[in-house]
Amino acid sequence: MIIVMEKNASDDQVSHIEQRVRDLGLKAHVIRGTERTVVAAVGDDRKVARESLESAPGVADIVPILAPYKVASREVKKEPTQVCALNLKVGGNSIGVIAGPCSVENEEQIVQTARAVKAAGATGLRGGAFKPRTSPYSFQGLKEDGLKLLDLARQETGLAIVTEVMSTEDVELVARYSDVLQVGARNMQNYRLLEAVGKVPRPVLLKRGPASSIDEWLLAAEYILNEGNPNVMLCERGIRTFETHTRYTLPLATVPYLHRKTHLPVVVDPSHGTGHTYLVPDMAAASIAAGCDGLIVEVHPNPEKAMSDGYQSLDFPQFDDMMTRCRVIATALGRTLG
Amino acid sequence: MIIVMEKNASDDQVSHIEQRVRDLGLKAHVIRGTERTVVAAVGDDRKVARESLESAPGVADIVPILAPYKVASREVKKEPTQVCALNLKVGGNSIGVIAGPCSVENEEQIVQTARAVKAAGATGLRGGAFKPRTSPYSFQGLKEDGLKLLDLARQETGLAIVTEVMSTEDVELVARYSDVLQVGARNMQNYRLLEAVGKVPRPVLLKRGPASSIDEWLLAAEYILNEGNPNVMLCERGIRTFETHTRYTLPLATVPYLHRKTHLPVVVDPSHGTGHTYLVPDMAAASIAAGCDGLIVEVHPNPEKAMSDGYQSLDFPQFDDMMTRCRVIATALGRTLG
Amino acid sequence: MIIVMEKNASDDQVSHIEQRVRDLGLKAHVIRGTERTVVAAVGDDRKVARESLESAPGVADIVPILAPYKVASREVKKEPTQVCALNLKVGGNSIGVIAGPCSVENEEQIVQTARAVKAAGATGLRGGAFKPRTSPYSFQGLKEDGLKLLDLARQETGLAIVTEVMSTEDVELVARYSDVLQVGARNMQNYRLLEAVGKVPRPVLLKRGPASSIDEWLLAAEYILNEGNPNVMLCERGIRTFETHTRYTLPLATVPYLHRKTHLPVVVDPSHGTGHTYLVPDMAAASIAAGCDGLIVEVHPNPEKAMSDGYQSLDFPQFDDMMTRCRVIATALGRTLG
Amino acid sequence: MIIVMEKNASDDQVSHIEQRVRDLGLKAHVIRGTERTVVAAVGDDRKVARESLESAPGVADIVPILAPYKVASREVKKEPTQVCALNLKVGGNSIGVIAGPCSVENEEQIVQTARAVKAAGATGLRGGAFKPRTSPYSFQGLKEDGLKLLDLARQETGLAIVTEVMSTEDVELVARYSDVLQVGARNMQNYRLLEAVGKVPRPVLLKRGPASSIDEWLLAAEYILNEGNPNVMLCERGIRTFETHTRYTLPLATVPYLHRKTHLPVVVDPSHGTGHTYLVPDMAAASIAAGCDGLIVEVHPNPEKAMSDGYQSLDFPQFDDMMTRCRVIATALGRTLG
Repeated sequence: MIIVMEKNASDDQVSHIEQRVRDLGLKAHVIRGTERTVVAAVGDDRKVARESLESAPGVADIVPILAPYKVASREVKKEPTQVCALNLKVGGNSIGVIAGPCSVENEEQIVQTARAVKAAGATGLRGGAFKPRTSPYSFQGLKEDGLKLLDLARQETGLAIVTEVMSTEDVELVARYSDVLQVGARNMQNYRLLEAVGKVPRPVLLKRGPASSIDEWLLAAEYILNEGNPNVMLCERGIRTFETHTRYTLPLATVPYLHRKTHLPVVVDPSHGTGHTYLVPDMAAASIAAGCDGLIVEVHPNPEKAMSDGYQSLDFPQFDDMMTRCRVIATALGRTLG
Repeated sequence: MIIVMEKNASDDQVSHIEQRVRDLGLKAHVIRGTERTVVAAVGDDRKVARESLESAPGVADIVPILAPYKVASREVKKEPTQVCALNLKVGGNSIGVIAGPCSVENEEQIVQTARAVKAAGATGLRGGAFKPRTSPYSFQGLKEDGLKLLDLARQETGLAIVTEVMSTEDVELVARYSDVLQVGARNMQNYRLLEAVGKVPRPVLLKRGPASSIDEWLLAAEYILNEGNPNVMLCERGIRTFETHTRYTLPLATVPYLHRKTHLPVVVDPSHGTGHTYLVPDMAAASIAAGCDGLIVEVHPNPEKAMSDGYQSLDFPQFDDMMTRCRVIATALGRTLG
Repeated sequence: MIIVMEKNASDDQVSHIEQRVRDLGLKAHVIRGTERTVVAAVGDDRKVARESLESAPGVADIVPILAPYKVASREVKKEPTQVCALNLKVGGNSIGVIAGPCSVENEEQIVQTARAVKAAGATGLRGGAFKPRTSPYSFQGLKEDGLKLLDLARQETGLAIVTEVMSTEDVELVARYSDVLQVGARNMQNYRLLEAVGKVPRPVLLKRGPASSIDEWLLAAEYILNEGNPNVMLCERGIRTFETHTRYTLPLATVPYLHRKTHLPVVVDPSHGTGHTYLVPDMAAASIAAGCDGLIVEVHPNPEKAMSDGYQSLDFPQFDDMMTRCRVIATALGRTLG
Repeated sequence: MIIVMEKNASDDQVSHIEQRVRDLGLKAHVIRGTERTVVAAVGDDRKVARESLESAPGVADIVPILAPYKVASREVKKEPTQVCALNLKVGGNSIGVIAGPCSVENEEQIVQTARAVKAAGATGLRGGAFKPRTSPYSFQGLKEDGLKLLDLARQETGLAIVTEVMSTEDVELVARYSDVLQVGARNMQNYRLLEAVGKVPRPVLLKRGPASSIDEWLLAAEYILNEGNPNVMLCERGIRTFETHTRYTLPLATVPYLHRKTHLPVVVDPSHGTGHTYLVPDMAAASIAAGCDGLIVEVHPNPEKAMSDGYQSLDFPQFDDMMTRCRVIATALGRTLG
């Protein structure tokens, strides 16, 4: 880190900082500029409460130099990680496609959807059994019954099941029925849950919290990786900004940025990332062009009657069209879709 | 809700919407404007997946009219709620002051701080035993040992203990040692946790998630209230914006806005809301002037050596000065501080 | 518009609003719901200070129904507008590509760049002669000398010249030397400038202000259109959000959203939209996939020595690679690039 | 500045940067850390296109150390600047209060308002004659006739006239009739306008652009100061964030932050900063408590019929109440209001 001193910091204040840096097990280099003195602290300061030094007298600012995450870093592992579950392949040359309804509603709905998305080229099936809903008055999911229906849909189609787990108590149960555990945006910094999914032998789809910085997101991944689970997929699903014509703002530059910083594969969710059906196909195509390793898309037999998220779900023909367009682009770029 | 039709929506599309509205148990009024037709759906639509109607053909937009929360609403309970725990009183004429370190570090630190903040006028003691930390490499709290130290500090000073609970498994344990359960910003939409704290006989301090809308926050409170716990305090701690000179942006207009919409008391956290020690006292004073019902402030014997959040902690003299200024304003406005 | 009354609004207050609505030349429909009364005001309320009604007693909220813009609306003109200047074609089946340095620095730089970008397939040349710079200490552009160099580059290559005009006084001068007038992001709501460029026979590239809503942006376009200039291109260049790994956040959902709302063509600027060279090509490709009608990209012979924006400029080989990738996608989608 | 090299940067790349730093007239210090090398460039780099170095091979990031502004800096001038115009005093011990309608509408309206706000303690009169309106269909102001009415109101009351100038062509005209020139939020980065107001002998009220960083805002002030006009007041009027219950988000921590960074006085606009009448008084009080040097508030005889901004205007009794509350707080803090 670099410790920037105030313009009129005294020699004693600079010496004090030098001493504090050494106390932290780091080396201190003092550089006296024309207007300010800065102290460069050399060494791995990730485990140090470095920002607290800001409170020392004469300190203007602390500038971290090292990325705060380590295991997730591309500097540690150069080759991209490919995450697989059944036929779902995410990363490397493969672009995985996970599709299905927001919520599992009944057998007909989920099995019919599974067949339709498989026919269009999807290799994973999404569907919520435990639903985190903003309002306590909204439909909360079928819970274990929903998981059983997902299992049934898997038997019918062979699609890998991707479903959300909301709570540490449910990790074992959800892992029993599913192939990929999804950690939702609202739980991205639920650290007990991250530790729990880090301990089960299932890949994890970690959604970005809508106010999270990239560093916070990669540190959340690090919680999972640190428990011994190397199969983490990062899922960009939009951030909160002042825009109101979309429910969230989908910042696709995240895709190439993450590819530079981490070896973990990057999935995009254009459904939550836009919040409106009519914007989803174009943003799915844009995600492929931006280099993503996977898509997760909401599809429902009759969106108008969906128990949740109908406004951003595709019906079957819309999904089919989307896949056709995405496949053309993936092929043009030398990648395999689905 | 109001369903706004596309400009060229057909009569059939309008009829379809009328029928759908009636199917949902609501009444439909059709208003044909010069450019657009709108359908007003009359009745309580809180439990209806109303937004899914957006997917119906010919629909341009859905505009909700009723607030999505109910029990938290000022329309349901006119008188402001006052939340009490030992001598801590938050709401009505009383402005409660909760102060203490980010983390409980050791006996001397917490007892010394408890005495100092009590002497300056605080009526609650904050201090984290279970710490949600962005990085897995950061200090994670003393856990039950920390709770025991908080209990000790309470015995020494009589201050009400306010401490965070991060996980449903820990609710009972934390409730045993503390007077107020804090739900942190990262867990504002951890619905299983909200339900759990809604079932214990302890007031809850519910921090706002940094990307949460007010409606989402009040719906989170509604999860707790619905479980039978009426003692919820809302804590504004800053939102995420493009500003970088503060860690979060503290939008104090939240205070009068919430007073208009809900009967629940509003606490402000100027420490997290600014992220820098030198900004805390002015924003604490501003919070009082804006009409808040409580403050929660980080105080540490030696911020420069704090194991967490030193950069935004006040030392004892700084806290004392802050309280003096806040008391002058509270008194001028006819309210009681601490 | 819909006027939502407070829950306990009196009959007199509702009557007062009905009268006020009629005074504004609109028709009033009163709908009494189970919890609230709303008044629907029917008619074109675009020229009415409608929001001021919010101050009337008993009013809780005003919900506009009609889009505030008119001439820019797709409801008024269904066919997409194609904007042309020399060989630059933006809209319809054609995706125009405008490339060049941030600032015109000298003859060699601009002519060499013009030749390189033309060879790679660009049909427009960008280059600033009047530079709006955040700091008064930064290079402010070569002014008329810069315009003359652009003219020279046009003679050498036939590329259409796209350059910024910052001030009403300069409109005539800049129009004399250029083919397209650019209104920069900082001037998107400089209404005197919008009126001035609306009066000259030159297409206008109107950049989005980084805090502008889509409605504000289309109303800015409406200022130009209203003066009689129909050739407006909208340029998305990123918005300000909490993200810090990019200089701005590029919300590509703007592209399909605008195509639904307006007939004006949409250009994307992945250089300003990301702020880092290494993110530009992927986001250019994503923009094509999202359906944009044009790209504007910063290219410099030696970005490291650029007098401005080097950090987000491509060098010639990088631009060439970007064009190859973009052409593959455009072709796959049935469109023509450059 | 600090140039952070990539982890695997070669010695040649580091040497290249050292050379480039020296070429820019700065000194280079190389510090080799355990994971990365950084190069500290020492000297005043404000006039250097420093960010372009990011494009050099092996460079990961550029971290500026010096604030980009100079004349506005508190490091250059320690004593706070007080700006005066007639009886309006902003800064030092005095808190100036500027009040009046959004737009000048007619003689009765402006003179009546001037008398009312003066009676309540205001020392400045606001009122727009040239109105920047988001929509071309909205009322655009009375222009010179409006200025004449402001002049009349000044003769009647002695209040200092604060009014907006939108364009360089109008600077002389507006300066002739007014005491303080306001540069609006939309024009904060209209550099030609900043230069023009920097050349006239009138204090300037510089509103913050809703997407501007503090550095951008102070650099805009620097444009004015550099032309020789030392009387600049900074006006915080809210930023654009995801919040929708307020029109803008008013970040009051700006006040103490600016006091630390600049000697220029800070005015707060709680009308635009909230966008709703009922939030204005509390936020005015909070602004005083946060230490602001002035308030600018919209007041109208009958907000419901205002030609602009009625939804955020106070009527006379509301303004009177607001002033009473603000005066109590100002007095308690040892400052003089109005």
